[in-house]
Amino acid sequence: MNKKDLPIGIFDSGAGGLTVLKEIKKILPSEDIVYLGDTAHLPYGAKSKSTIIKLSISNILFLLEKKVKLIIVACNSTSSVALPLIKNFFGVPILGVVEAGVEAVLDRKAKRIGIIGTSATIGSMSYQNLIKKRRPKAKIIAASCPLFVPLVEEGWVDSSVTELVAKTYLKGFKGKVDLLILGCTHYPLLKKVISKVLDKTELIDSAEEVATKTRDILKKSNLLKSKKRGKISFFLTDNSPVFPKLAELVLKRKFKPTVVSNI
Amino acid sequence: MNKKDLPIGIFDSGAGGLTVLKEIKKILPSEDIVYLGDTAHLPYGAKSKSTIIKLSISNILFLLEKKVKLIIVACNSTSSVALPLIKNFFGVPILGVVEAGVEAVLDRKAKRIGIIGTSATIGSMSYQNLIKKRRPKAKIIAASCPLFVPLVEEGWVDSSVTELVAKTYLKGFKGKVDLLILGCTHYPLLKKVISKVLDKTELIDSAEEVATKTRDILKKSNLLKSKKRGKISFFLTDNSPVFPKLAELVLKRKFKPTVVSNI
Repeated sequence: MNKKDLPIGIFDSGAGGLTVLKEIKKILPSEDIVYLGDTAHLPYGAKSKSTIIKLSISNILFLLEKKVKLIIVACNSTSSVALPLIKNFFGVPILGVVEAGVEAVLDRKAKRIGIIGTSATIGSMSYQNLIKKRRPKAKIIAASCPLFVPLVEEGWVDSSVTELVAKTYLKGFKGKVDLLILGCTHYPLLKKVISKVLDKTELIDSAEEVATKTRDILKKSNLLKSKKRGKISFFLTDNSPVFPKLAELVLKRKFKPTVVSNI
Repeated sequence: MNKKDLPIGIFDSGAGGLTVLKEIKKILPSEDIVYLGDTAHLPYGAKSKSTIIKLSISNILFLLEKKVKLIIVACNSTSSVALPLIKNFFGVPILGVVEAGVEAVLDRKAKRIGIIGTSATIGSMSYQNLIKKRRPKAKIIAASCPLFVPLVEEGWVDSSVTELVAKTYLKGFKGKVDLLILGCTHYPLLKKVISKVLDKTELIDSAEEVATKTRDILKKSNLLKSKKRGKISFFLTDNSPVFPKLAELVLKRKFKPTVVSNI
């Protein structure tokens, strides 16, 4: 088999990474994709560093068995906490949403930068540290928004409740940042509500950014698949009532995931 | 060691079971308690039946190693899904919050019964089936309230957001039920908000009910410890940022849990 024709692997703790998958399909429609949602262990955001590392390695090994040519860590908690430590251990490029988001910020001139994410992502300081290293004079405001994920998973993406929650969480950002990094793969589904609360603030969507970066890397390595329309295979480590609901919300299509109990 | 002096074991997927612990301490202050929060695998509510059964058995075995005299399953998802299948496998009595809640309902004359809980609890139909079996003419309305747990874990127990969420979830109950079973151990923390939305509806708190049942069983078996003030030991299967916060909210005291990585 030509290496070009191998699939791209994506993993997340659950369904959040579907927003990344959507962006990949949009700009690289010919690529085959293997998606792994580690639903038996979600949410990663509330877990310790060593547990997140162990789980990430299991996920990477699963995708390598599927012979992927590149892996995307479509989970900000994992990208923050585990990726810097393990990304060079394996034989394929591994990209994370955090680095992609940070690079997008650095491409812009903004000096007042907002970051939102889960408690694990914000607490890990990985966005903050990466930006500070490359642009020491940046003013950064960061906040965790723990209710955004359950609100998305409940499907309340534009309810008045979500708007009220967004107003509470984003109070400290109003008029104080030029752009806001959506540091969680669930958050792109809340773009409308967030834009309503923080008008005039550019939203940086890490899902879009990591998709662009994936295309650039595959192109550079001459690994882009161009023939035919790509296939998507979904694997979950446990049955999840939320996954099919979110898959339909994000991808506007129904999918049947395969449950793999041991990875 | 006298069997009376052995501790009571309590387990939950996380911190929700602390409401049960609180009630046990209130009516049985002399008892020692071993609390296990399986934080590495929370939330159980979104997991499949076979996974919940496997995890529950691990938790029970852990508590049996600690030589407990009785085990309380302080988690409605587990009590609903796993307990009926495994409760007779072990050498000590195992009580669940679901049966205790149902017995409290049957002690009352109410015929219009409301039940709220996680998706797993409501979907398992265990409350509904148990009540229907014993009181076939009961009118039952049940609804899952997936955002209540994250709201409690965020500490927003009496915010306007929580009130708005409660109004949305409880719309179908207003004027249609005489009592409402709080079918999740997190929900007693929302009693104030729920009572505001559903005034004139009696709230059945399974945590209180299972505590009373525990006292009755220990008394009957002559296993009540009466000397001295009891000690509490906390074990978690992973570090959790939520646990200490909730422990303080529920118990008004700080605790240091021990993290046990393999059970």
